[in-house]
Amino acid sequence: MSKQREALWCALEERSWKGKTLASVTTPAFVIHKDVVQRNCTRMLQTCLSLGVKLRAQTKTHKTIEGIDLQTGGSRRCLVSSTLDECEFLADHGCDDVLFGHPLVAHHLHRVTRLTKALEEFHVMVDSEEAVQVLTDAAPPAGKQWSVFLKLDCGKKRAGVWHQDIELGCTIVKSLTSSNNIIFRGVYTHCGDTYAAANMQQLEEIRDANVSRLLVFVKALEARLGVVCQTVGVGSTPSCSNPSPLMAQLTELHPGNYVFYDVQQQLLGSCAQDDIAGAVATRVIGHYPHRNQMLIDCGFSGLTKQGEGKMPAAGYGVIKGHPNLRLRSLDQEHGTVEPTGDEELDYSKYPVGSMLFILPYHSCATAAQYGVYLVVEDGVVMEEWRPTRGW
Amino acid sequence: MSKQREALWCALEERSWKGKTLASVTTPAFVIHKDVVQRNCTRMLQTCLSLGVKLRAQTKTHKTIEGIDLQTGGSRRCLVSSTLDECEFLADHGCDDVLFGHPLVAHHLHRVTRLTKALEEFHVMVDSEEAVQVLTDAAPPAGKQWSVFLKLDCGKKRAGVWHQDIELGCTIVKSLTSSNNIIFRGVYTHCGDTYAAANMQQLEEIRDANVSRLLVFVKALEARLGVVCQTVGVGSTPSCSNPSPLMAQLTELHPGNYVFYDVQQQLLGSCAQDDIAGAVATRVIGHYPHRNQMLIDCGFSGLTKQGEGKMPAAGYGVIKGHPNLRLRSLDQEHGTVEPTGDEELDYSKYPVGSMLFILPYHSCATAAQYGVYLVVEDGVVMEEWRPTRGW
Repeated sequence: MSKQREALWCALEERSWKGKTLASVTTPAFVIHKDVVQRNCTRMLQTCLSLGVKLRAQTKTHKTIEGIDLQTGGSRRCLVSSTLDECEFLADHGCDDVLFGHPLVAHHLHRVTRLTKALEEFHVMVDSEEAVQVLTDAAPPAGKQWSVFLKLDCGKKRAGVWHQDIELGCTIVKSLTSSNNIIFRGVYTHCGDTYAAANMQQLEEIRDANVSRLLVFVKALEARLGVVCQTVGVGSTPSCSNPSPLMAQLTELHPGNYVFYDVQQQLLGSCAQDDIAGAVATRVIGHYPHRNQMLIDCGFSGLTKQGEGKMPAAGYGVIKGHPNLRLRSLDQEHGTVEPTGDEELDYSKYPVGSMLFILPYHSCATAAQYGVYLVVEDGVVMEEWRPTRGW
Repeated sequence: MSKQREALWCALEERSWKGKTLASVTTPAFVIHKDVVQRNCTRMLQTCLSLGVKLRAQTKTHKTIEGIDLQTGGSRRCLVSSTLDECEFLADHGCDDVLFGHPLVAHHLHRVTRLTKALEEFHVMVDSEEAVQVLTDAAPPAGKQWSVFLKLDCGKKRAGVWHQDIELGCTIVKSLTSSNNIIFRGVYTHCGDTYAAANMQQLEEIRDANVSRLLVFVKALEARLGVVCQTVGVGSTPSCSNPSPLMAQLTELHPGNYVFYDVQQQLLGSCAQDDIAGAVATRVIGHYPHRNQMLIDCGFSGLTKQGEGKMPAAGYGVIKGHPNLRLRSLDQEHGTVEPTGDEELDYSKYPVGSMLFILPYHSCATAAQYGVYLVVEDGVVMEEWRPTRGW
């Protein structure tokens, strides 16, 4: 930071909002309600406890150490992250038992080696013979082995060995178990196809199909190779927020979005609107009575356009407490708000300078737009959470 | 940065990619071709020169000092930014004659005062009597006046006094010109409705409608109030990339996206594909022959979903040099790629670990996902541009 910029910022006392009123913060701002985060995290820990499985908390939605403390009940253990940047961030903050939940390729090896050395337990995920080869060809750090999960595709059709391809699965597991470099940990599935469910019945069907397919695969491994999977994990917020008794046959769940939830999760039935812990604070910056609209200072840079077409009534995001308002359009730094119906906008309710709070359609995308999240209680910024960023 | 993280990063020598090969960089990465940026910037400067108007370069697409140097031919003068953060970034880097191109509200006053003090010329934009009141009520820094543009809406229907509302326009300008605190600079229009054009004819019609409406308004101001606008500006990349002789009657143009361009601009006819200066470098991370797809390590976190539904053939982004490939889906850190037609994917062309380059639908949104842009020449990272971020 240059001297002049430092001067501007220090003079403004804006480098930290802690202790200041919400009314004073620069908008757009990502505001979180810690009590709601706490409640969401406690509920997921209890879900896992009652199923008799571990929670391997996915950190991708918030990417903060404060969120991880709530997810893990303070232990900072048993985590999964989707970028090596996050894994390194976790390593920095005393976390351990971390899974890099992304298909391993050769390019990752250098950083994976460092993390394997730095942590007591660092795990990677493979879904091909080529990826196994990367590990069998490389020497793990002294006194360590590569700790490896097989990624299985039980319906999502993203990464993973297709669950019906028992041959390929067995070939990979055989390679994993026969290398001295490697400890085979078990099998992992992301049941992200639950996001495509149109209703709760479909969601439950997709969830149970994923779990059943995974269990069938695990039994086939045992029958064919005599290999017992120490870990069998399935995750996604829609499935773990609506758990099934079938999940008690697993050893781990690994949801992530539940920390904040969002409108997408509400529409899926994963949560109530009151469970959505994060919102974008924005100010009304203009009244345009001739077109029955007003302007806010949140554009796609502060929200993302992920809600486009997903919430016909609300537009790009739900304006909390104002079901009569639609976020009609988003440019980079501006949003246009209008009534949902034919009524005239009552501008006296929304003075220029007043704040509105937008519940994001997809909190993972929205949170990633911010260098800091403001934890607000009774109108005061109590904490600032600073997420990691990058890859 | 904690000691451990510092150690991890330093050991990896990844804190800077400068001088390293493109093949070695962490993906996704935002890669820019400086020669293309340079060409785009030179062309826009020439357009303005031949029209006899100034270029007031909008910085929002790239938010870097390197981009500003190319936009301004090194002068760092005559700029417009849409956030106060950017204005402060510019002030830090010796830029001047800067317009905060966002409707002014009372909350901005503190930072606007600092910037007015710090810069020789700092301008704000108003579109309401309330905003004028904010300025007339506040003392400008010693020896300064508030420098103010009237924002006019000539068709975009975002911010601004509606061009036909001459009464409101005159009332505001009268207040501006009668306050000792204020210098009235002129009138400004963002002709962003050009983005809605379905073809070049429509684009030209919208562009000319905006310019004509602005000129009519300016004449009305002069006729009614005897006020001459020192500055009359219109901007948007589609209009300024396809300029009209009518624009010679203006004093300034203020496009921004042209620095990088993108697929949206190509589809609008603002540029050719070769003019798109930025692309997301991503690696192939998995082959899935049973579903004729492959996986890449760029998800919405590295591209944004702004292309959704906009490019039926390409999907979420155009994969450069591979018109036969579609970016079918995007999760947070994964993208699924498949052929556009019925053909079988030839995996030998796309080995795991090989790079693909995605041309973004909207470069402003995509660039904002990155803390650094990599300037690549002949496969080597020659420069790193670090954008400012926030509001």
